[in-house]
Amino acid sequence: MAETVTMEKVVALCKRRGFVFPSSEIYGGVGSTYDYGHYGVLLKSNVKNEWWRAMLQDREDIVALDSAIIQHPRVWEASGHLAGFTDPLVDCRTCKLRFRADHIDQSACGLKPSKHPGEHSECNLTEARDFNLMFETTVGPVKEQGATAYLRPETAQGIFINFKNVLQFSRKKPPFGIAQIGKSFRNEITPGNFIFRTREFEQMEMEYFVPPDEAHNWFEHWLKERMDWYVELGLRPDHLRLRAHERDELSHYSSATSDVEYLFPIGWSELEGIANRGCFDLTQHADFSGEKLEYFDPETKERYIPHVIEPAAGADRATLAFLVDAYEEEEVPGAASEQGQTMESRTVLRLHPRLAPVKVAVMPLVKKDGQPELARGIHDQLRRLMQSEYDEGGSIGKRYRRQDEIGTPWGVTVDHKSMEDHTVTLRDRDTLAQERIGIDELAGELQRRLAAPWRSPKLG
Amino acid sequence: MAETVTMEKVVALCKRRGFVFPSSEIYGGVGSTYDYGHYGVLLKSNVKNEWWRAMLQDREDIVALDSAIIQHPRVWEASGHLAGFTDPLVDCRTCKLRFRADHIDQSACGLKPSKHPGEHSECNLTEARDFNLMFETTVGPVKEQGATAYLRPETAQGIFINFKNVLQFSRKKPPFGIAQIGKSFRNEITPGNFIFRTREFEQMEMEYFVPPDEAHNWFEHWLKERMDWYVELGLRPDHLRLRAHERDELSHYSSATSDVEYLFPIGWSELEGIANRGCFDLTQHADFSGEKLEYFDPETKERYIPHVIEPAAGADRATLAFLVDAYEEEEVPGAASEQGQTMESRTVLRLHPRLAPVKVAVMPLVKKDGQPELARGIHDQLRRLMQSEYDEGGSIGKRYRRQDEIGTPWGVTVDHKSMEDHTVTLRDRDTLAQERIGIDELAGELQRRLAAPWRSPKLG
Repeated sequence: MAETVTMEKVVALCKRRGFVFPSSEIYGGVGSTYDYGHYGVLLKSNVKNEWWRAMLQDREDIVALDSAIIQHPRVWEASGHLAGFTDPLVDCRTCKLRFRADHIDQSACGLKPSKHPGEHSECNLTEARDFNLMFETTVGPVKEQGATAYLRPETAQGIFINFKNVLQFSRKKPPFGIAQIGKSFRNEITPGNFIFRTREFEQMEMEYFVPPDEAHNWFEHWLKERMDWYVELGLRPDHLRLRAHERDELSHYSSATSDVEYLFPIGWSELEGIANRGCFDLTQHADFSGEKLEYFDPETKERYIPHVIEPAAGADRATLAFLVDAYEEEEVPGAASEQGQTMESRTVLRLHPRLAPVKVAVMPLVKKDGQPELARGIHDQLRRLMQSEYDEGGSIGKRYRRQDEIGTPWGVTVDHKSMEDHTVTLRDRDTLAQERIGIDELAGELQRRLAAPWRSPKLG
Repeated sequence: MAETVTMEKVVALCKRRGFVFPSSEIYGGVGSTYDYGHYGVLLKSNVKNEWWRAMLQDREDIVALDSAIIQHPRVWEASGHLAGFTDPLVDCRTCKLRFRADHIDQSACGLKPSKHPGEHSECNLTEARDFNLMFETTVGPVKEQGATAYLRPETAQGIFINFKNVLQFSRKKPPFGIAQIGKSFRNEITPGNFIFRTREFEQMEMEYFVPPDEAHNWFEHWLKERMDWYVELGLRPDHLRLRAHERDELSHYSSATSDVEYLFPIGWSELEGIANRGCFDLTQHADFSGEKLEYFDPETKERYIPHVIEPAAGADRATLAFLVDAYEEEEVPGAASEQGQTMESRTVLRLHPRLAPVKVAVMPLVKKDGQPELARGIHDQLRRLMQSEYDEGGSIGKRYRRQDEIGTPWGVTVDHKSMEDHTVTLRDRDTLAQERIGIDELAGELQRRLAAPWRSPKLG
């Protein structure tokens, strides 16, 4: 079924169920900017927590950082962003539009501009000029007195400039890493594809500092680690691939880069880049700041500039990939009883339970006979342990469908039997299996399921 | 001892132990901008989690939102920020410096400017002019083609413009709330006092939409709720107060505002503002956007614009308050045995265990005889349940002091006896009491303590 997932369907579900809204919508929107609604906040927050878990909890060689968005302007001189973080743009003298010279095929111009300026075409293009992608602003009282500053285009530089501070307090020695999640900003000419490419986005970046001769091995290590992370959280392995950059694609600072790519509805696209940055960044910041950014090993008496392996992921794109991969439309037994008389279609998000915004929905079958009170009591117990929702509105079938659409893995239904024998129905989102379970065992059973490894039913 | 806590001491501890670093320090810093280090990230993240818990987990009438930082410029026209979010500035013609007209006493000018422009003084001031506090930037390919936009100065407006979207998907009816945590930016002329006032800061804001005639009662409700939150997390009640704004202090949109103030080393200062904003914001955005932002009650057939109660807290300031309140220097029995032969001084952060960056430190008494291996095993078990640190470096006394300084509530020490009877020493940060406990009981005991209500030992 995955082949039928379109971006439009995912966007529609996100709006309808409160995952993601177009930003400033009542004012006609701001191009390619989105606001996360309730379930979107919960889902993305789970994605970020799983990243922190992999970085901080499952290993002990990484520390956390949260650096400022507006940093000293010299940071961007040293990093090369001020001079080189540019897109080549061309203007059309006829239609007055501006295009990215390297994406001219995708331009909105009806006049079919030629790729080759000067060549015969219906469009009359200027030579390409470079425009910087950093957002510029002014810090200080007023423009004429203030200093030009930039919104960071990546979180990584905030890590490099804190290398010395972290080394001092943390008592770490290479190999060790510094991890950070935070917003970055790029004044993209052609953002698009929902939350895949936005001007304001959230990164999950880790810089791993290693002895120079270990760089290659650690690069391989992180390729594997990061691929495994996506697979463990449920992305289908045949929708994931590693693509090594060709020599002419490599950034000036990198000796090797591989992208983790996911098969989005728009085709194979980058989820995360893993780069061997060598000693480029620390060397640059040492040169520009005059501070020594190196490591002295007290045992070997060696002094060296660590090399850096960087897995740099996008929190928004990861969230989108998990949504797309989980999305499914299917025919299931009818709403009323789920005993199979009639078939009806449902949309379901087969999210990994740890990623699902809501873990369990508790519902009374009918809104009387003490069922709502008992269901509320169960919900009150569960919601201290995990994200739980109480829902008594509409038919039971409609409530199941709503929970299926937001990816809630388990549904608990209180019915007339519950009032007699203190059991409830526990429904599985994916198999639709319903089993009766004692109310006393419910919390333990759900916690066990939540902690267990999970395999997407899409894998068959 | 609290009276001796100075901002300088807290700043020094934060730098030394990796809570907070001056931002871009290797480049000489950026005024009043800070980066959070490992323990700072963990602490602030715990503060934010406790806020989410109070908003989303302990009650069911609030949903989450995460809106964009760069919104449609019309948002700031409607909100009044474009016209009115200003500071009055004066220039001195002699010394060429610029001051806030209302803070002129605190100016750095050596010439003692007069408060009254034109009056005789050594300084020659211009009349005050208003300067907007919003950071300005340009969205789009290049300046001449791009649109002027602003970095949001508060997260609240992102909530108001999503009111209709949230109402549609969430099936909520007033009273209900929308909560958001995120960065805001203000181009302050006089930021300062460490992370108390910075140009880039993180807000925790909730807008609570209510029927107009219930506004006053809900305002009172939220005053109490928010005061209780700080007290429950350990701030001493006699260092907290509610201060109602005088009539002439009130913002144009507010009929009542009270600040939660904390007794910082710089004096009583605002932690959080709780405002009755009436229907100002929804009315403004309805007028400017042409969208109806109101609620239709299907039961009463009433249609109305909800009034809004807003508790708006600062995540950085709350973090600072918890740090300041927890900070203590004291004399304790000497390092080697803690049996009391000699006294030595220690610095301790008496943080609420739920806020403490690290919950437990596991340490072998000596680095041999199998103790490190046993301690590591205990740590490996505990770190799946809570933030745990393994520490084998330096004398045991030195390790305790390090954990005291970052506020770790419990220390577990493996010694020779542990190897025989499978017990360890469990040390309490505040009482310094040490008790022996079976290794098998440790995880359960720590989880029990973490979930229990907590009372600061500073309360006596």
